[in-house]
Amino acid sequence: MSELPTTPLLDTIHVPADLRALKPDQLRQLADELRAEVISAVGTTGGHLGSGLGVVELTTAIHYVFDTPRDRLVWDVGHQCYPHKILTGRRDRIRTLRQGGGLSGFTKRSESEYDPFGAAHSSTSISASIGFATANRLTDRPGKAIAVIGDGSMSAGMAYEAMNNAEKAGNRLVVILNDNDMSIAPPVGGLSAYLSRIVSSREFLGLRDILRKFARKLPRPIHNAARKTDEFARGLTMGGTLFEELGFYYVGPIDGHNLDHLIPVLENVRDAEEGPILVHVVTKKGKGYAPAEESADKYHGVQKFDVITGTQAKAPPGPPAYQNVFGDALVEEAKRDPTIVAITAAMPGGTGVDRFAKAFPDRAFDVGIAEQHAVTFAAGLAAQGMRPFCAIYSTFLQRAYDQVVHDVAIQNLPVRFAIDRAGLVGADGATHAGSFDVTYLATLPNFVVMAAADEAELVHMVHTMALHDSSPIAVRYPRGNGTGVVLPETPERLAIGKGRMMREGKKVAILSLGTRLAEALHAADALEAKGLSTSVADLRFAKPLDEALIRRLLTTHEVAVTIEENAVGGLGAHVLTLASDAGLLDGGLIDGGLKLRTMRLPDIFQDQDKPELQYAAAGLDAAAIVDTVLTALRHNSTGVEAGVRA
Amino acid sequence: MSELPTTPLLDTIHVPADLRALKPDQLRQLADELRAEVISAVGTTGGHLGSGLGVVELTTAIHYVFDTPRDRLVWDVGHQCYPHKILTGRRDRIRTLRQGGGLSGFTKRSESEYDPFGAAHSSTSISASIGFATANRLTDRPGKAIAVIGDGSMSAGMAYEAMNNAEKAGNRLVVILNDNDMSIAPPVGGLSAYLSRIVSSREFLGLRDILRKFARKLPRPIHNAARKTDEFARGLTMGGTLFEELGFYYVGPIDGHNLDHLIPVLENVRDAEEGPILVHVVTKKGKGYAPAEESADKYHGVQKFDVITGTQAKAPPGPPAYQNVFGDALVEEAKRDPTIVAITAAMPGGTGVDRFAKAFPDRAFDVGIAEQHAVTFAAGLAAQGMRPFCAIYSTFLQRAYDQVVHDVAIQNLPVRFAIDRAGLVGADGATHAGSFDVTYLATLPNFVVMAAADEAELVHMVHTMALHDSSPIAVRYPRGNGTGVVLPETPERLAIGKGRMMREGKKVAILSLGTRLAEALHAADALEAKGLSTSVADLRFAKPLDEALIRRLLTTHEVAVTIEENAVGGLGAHVLTLASDAGLLDGGLIDGGLKLRTMRLPDIFQDQDKPELQYAAAGLDAAAIVDTVLTALRHNSTGVEAGVRA
Repeated sequence: MSELPTTPLLDTIHVPADLRALKPDQLRQLADELRAEVISAVGTTGGHLGSGLGVVELTTAIHYVFDTPRDRLVWDVGHQCYPHKILTGRRDRIRTLRQGGGLSGFTKRSESEYDPFGAAHSSTSISASIGFATANRLTDRPGKAIAVIGDGSMSAGMAYEAMNNAEKAGNRLVVILNDNDMSIAPPVGGLSAYLSRIVSSREFLGLRDILRKFARKLPRPIHNAARKTDEFARGLTMGGTLFEELGFYYVGPIDGHNLDHLIPVLENVRDAEEGPILVHVVTKKGKGYAPAEESADKYHGVQKFDVITGTQAKAPPGPPAYQNVFGDALVEEAKRDPTIVAITAAMPGGTGVDRFAKAFPDRAFDVGIAEQHAVTFAAGLAAQGMRPFCAIYSTFLQRAYDQVVHDVAIQNLPVRFAIDRAGLVGADGATHAGSFDVTYLATLPNFVVMAAADEAELVHMVHTMALHDSSPIAVRYPRGNGTGVVLPETPERLAIGKGRMMREGKKVAILSLGTRLAEALHAADALEAKGLSTSVADLRFAKPLDEALIRRLLTTHEVAVTIEENAVGGLGAHVLTLASDAGLLDGGLIDGGLKLRTMRLPDIFQDQDKPELQYAAAGLDAAAIVDTVLTALRHNSTGVEAGVRA
Repeated sequence: MSELPTTPLLDTIHVPADLRALKPDQLRQLADELRAEVISAVGTTGGHLGSGLGVVELTTAIHYVFDTPRDRLVWDVGHQCYPHKILTGRRDRIRTLRQGGGLSGFTKRSESEYDPFGAAHSSTSISASIGFATANRLTDRPGKAIAVIGDGSMSAGMAYEAMNNAEKAGNRLVVILNDNDMSIAPPVGGLSAYLSRIVSSREFLGLRDILRKFARKLPRPIHNAARKTDEFARGLTMGGTLFEELGFYYVGPIDGHNLDHLIPVLENVRDAEEGPILVHVVTKKGKGYAPAEESADKYHGVQKFDVITGTQAKAPPGPPAYQNVFGDALVEEAKRDPTIVAITAAMPGGTGVDRFAKAFPDRAFDVGIAEQHAVTFAAGLAAQGMRPFCAIYSTFLQRAYDQVVHDVAIQNLPVRFAIDRAGLVGADGATHAGSFDVTYLATLPNFVVMAAADEAELVHMVHTMALHDSSPIAVRYPRGNGTGVVLPETPERLAIGKGRMMREGKKVAILSLGTRLAEALHAADALEAKGLSTSVADLRFAKPLDEALIRRLLTTHEVAVTIEENAVGGLGAHVLTLASDAGLLDGGLIDGGLKLRTMRLPDIFQDQDKPELQYAAAGLDAAAIVDTVLTALRHNSTGVEAGVRA
């Protein structure tokens, strides 16, 4: 751990009201101390660094100018909120970021009244802020709503839907477009090009411009839309036509690191009588920390690092990350099949599509934060004979659920879904967990849903998907590194809807889907040690189920347990349904009777923690499997626990 | 049924190639005959009329100018496709529209090669078309992709995501913006205002303008974006800056009923070397049929009608539609609670929010086709102390699934969801069925999920929702009219997670969720007639389940059957999971053993049909319940059917 920075002024700030008591000429020093504290804290904990450093001055200025928490400040995505957390009463816990029991790496309502709306997925801030502004208007309460949204987040459809509905929020709504020309990866799309044109074609607004432009202040409400558009908007602003056409007053671009410019602009925006106003602020991701500024990804997400050198702690050498196994496997498939293309929604590195793009630049598509488009674009490609792989995190695929249902499943188009970050995700917490995809996909007719138990399985499954043209097909796999198994030289085409037996036993059967297989095998060892002969199956498919295998296991074992990293409604529900349909759960089916249990993610949103602690808390490790089996064995119809009938 | 129109020219058109053999001066007559045929057909079948009439000339012109089906024509939403179906080989079946075994009311891939991409939900056409264009580019095939999208559909985020990604599709992509200033309801939002400004501030392009503007043709590819933007786009087009900023060449506005203008514009667009091009066409919904033109909703969706008078067949007098019961009930709640607000996404009439808006204009919000915004806007309202009711069809709520998860459920905000059109929907078919909401909502922690068995229950549930501040809560109810029960004078607040017993029996228990309750009661009568004493419960809640009631029923009956209008993963799965967790399904639990079965929607996308036939096909009527019970009773572990143990 590095030495703590010296922060005499920051030490006096406990809540934003303290900040507002400072003189304007003290803010530069405060921002510098705040930046040093952010660097120090993230050096200790790891986490999102670049985006927080980019908004140090903006955070300071907003809390200085606006009356938080009465004025509602909504940080889009929320990963840039570490400086905000330091200024809003959470500095004492800032070195617990993203750790079990510690501060969330995102904004979170339960943490602070200064976090009026939690976020972690992008592009929600404008909609939420319109909600705040509208509630205040309806109840005649004072208070603005301020959404701070990055240019990358602006590429998502929901940001546009919100902008399209912003006009009625009037001057209670302020949108600050934080344009750092970069979200996680370099930006894509027409909007990004548009913003670049504005910035490159204009000088930043200087102090004189600002004062002149606001000298007249925003006028009293005018109900003549034409006059407003023609006289006011065109007169007072520079560029920003796109936003003006949607009903905003555009102000910018402003240098987001210059407090002497930010403060008067925000003060004028605060006092304006017309609105909504969009303030276009240009910032530099990683600003003020040389190693971040010089890095390609601007230290978007980092491990613990040495503050002096910027050197990040290396992960111990280990098996490859799942996303890279996926990317490499897809490259191999694409070498023999020119119709294979890959699509990512702003996550080329996180999904491994970057590797594919390197090998096949023309066949890789990063559509920006636009999952809805990604999926229907893939459907269109499939309808025209291509073999698209749509690589999207489980939690973000929720953004495109209707497209999955309506454009892919109903039309039975062979779009391939590579679902990364399925299951628990450690430090990112509940908002990023992929807890529901088995449920929400396996309920759909036509869909094939697989889960990879390890990275070798993933390679087989990618191959299987490449060759599967008769329906939509998905594979889910977890965040992090593989288990270390040897990757296959030649991938195998798996039979659709067929599982595999990992070990054969007689009394207990564990039916695993996906990553809990290793724990299932550990549990089997422990059960055997207790004299309980245990079978373990890797079902591979949540849909279609391996009915023959499941029937055999359920009719020849005394206890059967399903396990999956998914909430209720997934594998366990499907196995129960199959068994119930077939009458396998009817009382008295075999001597002594079958006891079927399903293990799944608990019915809560689990906070961040170390993965192994998360699994233990979720009851999805070997010990929990053993416990479930033993409890089931003891259970009898009297409700009185019997001894184990070994 | 009205007399068939005389259509000598249309009679010669079997496929678009026949159309392309006509002389340009014959097209006016063809369009007139086509319009008459559309009116006649919809007069017979009912269905979507206004939007089809608005695109008669556009449909004719597109098939005349473009080389369909090689050129891929994608109709957004698809409800305007009846003229297209008539021209593309389906005229002989046009009077089977929306009927069982007949033509779908939307575009459908399985119907025709001229329907390259099915639709029914809005705003998918640009993404799909970019997919087609990109596939052609990658495989070096000729062929354009043409998306025809209404101004209402343009308000959805996914259309914007697609536009933001259109540039790379180049001149293979043509987007035709069909601006009729109206989707189902009058338009809302900034984009709509923007389009109105363009149209009202400009003359339509005249023939001379068109020829002059295209005289130079679109230039050879220019790789200098600045030059392109400044010289080309600004020079050749009028208005449309918003689209230009996103990378389109804008052409328009064009009178969409003037074939002499449409044809040369489309020919020039077809031959342009640069792209993508957006053609702004202005049409009139209901055009050419006086009763439609004069109607407020332009005959958007109609019953069978008399062609001469336009008089629609009246539905027989009957119970009120569920949406109206909802709207009226919400008005009552809102009278005593000023924090109640209502949100609809472009469906004020379909959801009953129109009734609320009439009573409380300031507290009703129609956000346009923008479900994502609708939900997160509601979350923001809830976070600021309001009590928002988000009224969205089940199938369209899929568009906002991530917002439901991330902004509502994770934050445990008390947003109220009124989910209309849950279950099968008759003539609208698979794309509009609400088959998955119990599955995709009940898997989420924090959520309360109710289903109304009849319209009186809906009133109680709306009241219950109004008073429920501790979590998100949803009620689902079906398309169509209530059962005719008396509506309560004073609604009752239901206990969360408690069902109700409808009748008590001893041998068979039917656990119903929602609308199948009446069939369950009929089935109970039939079973009693066979000497099988039958209990019927209305569980009311899919989540939380009434554990005490379910335990009692499962431990005191020989056969238990759950029934719901939802796919696998819903109520049945949750009851099975509860029972399995509690060991109630363990073999030999009670003498003779329990037999639990779940009845649900089948694992297929069901085509349109009369509702009662759909239920029969789905196996969700009283006969199917009886059959399920009797089959279960006969089932034994030997697999040999035993006699009923009555």
